[in-house]
Amino acid sequence: MTFELLAEDGGARRGRLTTPHGVVETPAFMPVGTQGVVKSLTPADLKGVGTQIVLANTYHLFLRPGHALVAELGGLHHFMGWDGPILTDSGGYQVWSLAPLRRIGEQGVWFRSHLDGGTAHLLTPELTVEIQHALGADILHPLDECLPYPASRPEVEASTQRTARWARRARAAHRAGARSGQACFGIVQGGMYPDLRRVSADATCALEFDGYALGGFAVGEPRGLMVDLVGLTAEALPHQRPRYLMGVGQPSDLVLAVTAGVDLFDCVLPTRHARTGQVFTRHGLLVIKHAAHARDPQPIDTACLCYTCRTFSRAYLRHLFLARELTVYRLLTLHNLTFYLGLMAEMRAAIAAGALASLRRAVLDVYASVEAVIVPEAVPPAQEDPS
Amino acid sequence: MTFELLAEDGGARRGRLTTPHGVVETPAFMPVGTQGVVKSLTPADLKGVGTQIVLANTYHLFLRPGHALVAELGGLHHFMGWDGPILTDSGGYQVWSLAPLRRIGEQGVWFRSHLDGGTAHLLTPELTVEIQHALGADILHPLDECLPYPASRPEVEASTQRTARWARRARAAHRAGARSGQACFGIVQGGMYPDLRRVSADATCALEFDGYALGGFAVGEPRGLMVDLVGLTAEALPHQRPRYLMGVGQPSDLVLAVTAGVDLFDCVLPTRHARTGQVFTRHGLLVIKHAAHARDPQPIDTACLCYTCRTFSRAYLRHLFLARELTVYRLLTLHNLTFYLGLMAEMRAAIAAGALASLRRAVLDVYASVEAVIVPEAVPPAQEDPS
Repeated sequence: MTFELLAEDGGARRGRLTTPHGVVETPAFMPVGTQGVVKSLTPADLKGVGTQIVLANTYHLFLRPGHALVAELGGLHHFMGWDGPILTDSGGYQVWSLAPLRRIGEQGVWFRSHLDGGTAHLLTPELTVEIQHALGADILHPLDECLPYPASRPEVEASTQRTARWARRARAAHRAGARSGQACFGIVQGGMYPDLRRVSADATCALEFDGYALGGFAVGEPRGLMVDLVGLTAEALPHQRPRYLMGVGQPSDLVLAVTAGVDLFDCVLPTRHARTGQVFTRHGLLVIKHAAHARDPQPIDTACLCYTCRTFSRAYLRHLFLARELTVYRLLTLHNLTFYLGLMAEMRAAIAAGALASLRRAVLDVYASVEAVIVPEAVPPAQEDPS
Repeated sequence: MTFELLAEDGGARRGRLTTPHGVVETPAFMPVGTQGVVKSLTPADLKGVGTQIVLANTYHLFLRPGHALVAELGGLHHFMGWDGPILTDSGGYQVWSLAPLRRIGEQGVWFRSHLDGGTAHLLTPELTVEIQHALGADILHPLDECLPYPASRPEVEASTQRTARWARRARAAHRAGARSGQACFGIVQGGMYPDLRRVSADATCALEFDGYALGGFAVGEPRGLMVDLVGLTAEALPHQRPRYLMGVGQPSDLVLAVTAGVDLFDCVLPTRHARTGQVFTRHGLLVIKHAAHARDPQPIDTACLCYTCRTFSRAYLRHLFLARELTVYRLLTLHNLTFYLGLMAEMRAAIAAGALASLRRAVLDVYASVEAVIVPEAVPPAQEDPS
């Protein structure tokens, strides 16, 4: 994996990440394919909205269908029909969200499967890497420990040190087992304590990862605190390596974190919001079921070129949403991802032109007031049959 | 609307129906778009699998979003983004399936909405036609009365006479209010009594409709009885008019009814089966969640050219189905409609070549043992949120 910096605008970076499965122009947003699929979409849909790279969740694929099965069927790219880059997360966040079904020790994390609530598993730093190797991820991550907000300083200190020890074990396992071209990012924790963030960044960088993830955000902290700590952490990372802010965020989070020097993002927000009928527009978030749209012949956003906006009125989408028609979840997902990936493309162009500040102001004017804290894909709720 | 007969093979007919929104090569199968959408698909998907014409349900669209709203937004074609022909049903079957929430009288059918269980509506032959005019259907149907199986001869006699009186009122309403090119089919009832089928056919034909629907099948009768009565009814209809068998059926029903001279079909079977994980192949029905497919790298059907079969393994589709991922319902629906529309295309070619008999044998070899009676789209069950 290589990473080139093509332009900078203040702290913001316009880069190019080259992986075994293709190039990612950064800053980039990764749609979340938790279970080996971006909910409601196909790989053709993902290409159609301009997706460069997708995220898949190690924890979910470990439990179902299992990494051995995925490997037997040719790896995750072949299994899910996606030939572009794939980044897998560490599983740390999902296991953390399983409490009280999990117990953390030095060896790793014991947990009970959320699928059957019974089967016990031990996820170690070594196993996590083995799973991601078997999946064939282009970019993988070491097991880390997430912390709640607020957390006491002693808790955060102890946890961050353990994450660093796990990172060392994961790095060794990755060096021993990586296939050609697979990259591994280190994860910086440190809770909401600026000095512990720096300590964690230094310890992680000392292991010389291919890139660095900023973990442990979007756990309930105030947005201002998150933005400050993201900036401070980014500054502590090597300039020539890609930086990935895990599980964040809102459009306003994206422009602020790009300003602070972040290159990669993932978040379930655009896809999850679509399934609850909330769609992004240049003028703010629109709730499709509102009665105001009942007779509205306009598309969601007149300036949007997605299939949904080219084809359907708000009135029709509202009708489908109220009727709980499956088609509408895909249509709104296509729109929201078009919005997110379009915003990233605008940011890349703005950085190259030295004009990120005015784009940032425009986005913040519309989206600054939206609640910043978004819950990443944890353990899914039970679902009903759609028949 | 015009209908040309291009070739015949025994009783089977190869025809061409020309409507204001395009040509339908017959025999044809119509995917069911109950609420103004074929479940899980878009108009682009429908074109992609070779759909020529879709069916929409008068009853459902009357209740939600309402025909006045659809008309205000440019009619059903524009509303749902489908520029091909649309056939609307009479609403009779859906209202019948609402028992005990409905009461039938000479004026029409009083019923309570399944959406709120409370609001009372009166559906008359005149209102049904008015709704379908407002929707802008290419082919509409008069209100009719469906009967359960078994039903006594006096019941069927009285009901069939009422359906005939309603047909006369609907015909008058259609003549008074039709827009340019809108066609209206008459519906033949008569229960499972051969002579009453003939009486109903004669009474309906006397009103000179643009085509004729065979109603009241797939209500629980034995398959052999249905096939016999379809053949007998088809013989009683004018040779130069299209014939439409409502709500039927299985692949074997299609080849048998085509043999008997039927030109048009609709059924929820391919789309509903997809959502319950049952997919059609040349070798029979395949249940995707079966453990036998857990490690199977093959597509659903190696000879199928649909997007699903070109892209995904049975193992992956099974994984998505077990994980209840929304994407899988669309993928299986695309496959099943490709199978159905491909079968119709094969039948059209076989009739033109005088070779329907061998195709019929091949289909019956695989599908004759499958239960023939399929429940059409009645009142939908409550669904859960997909989030």
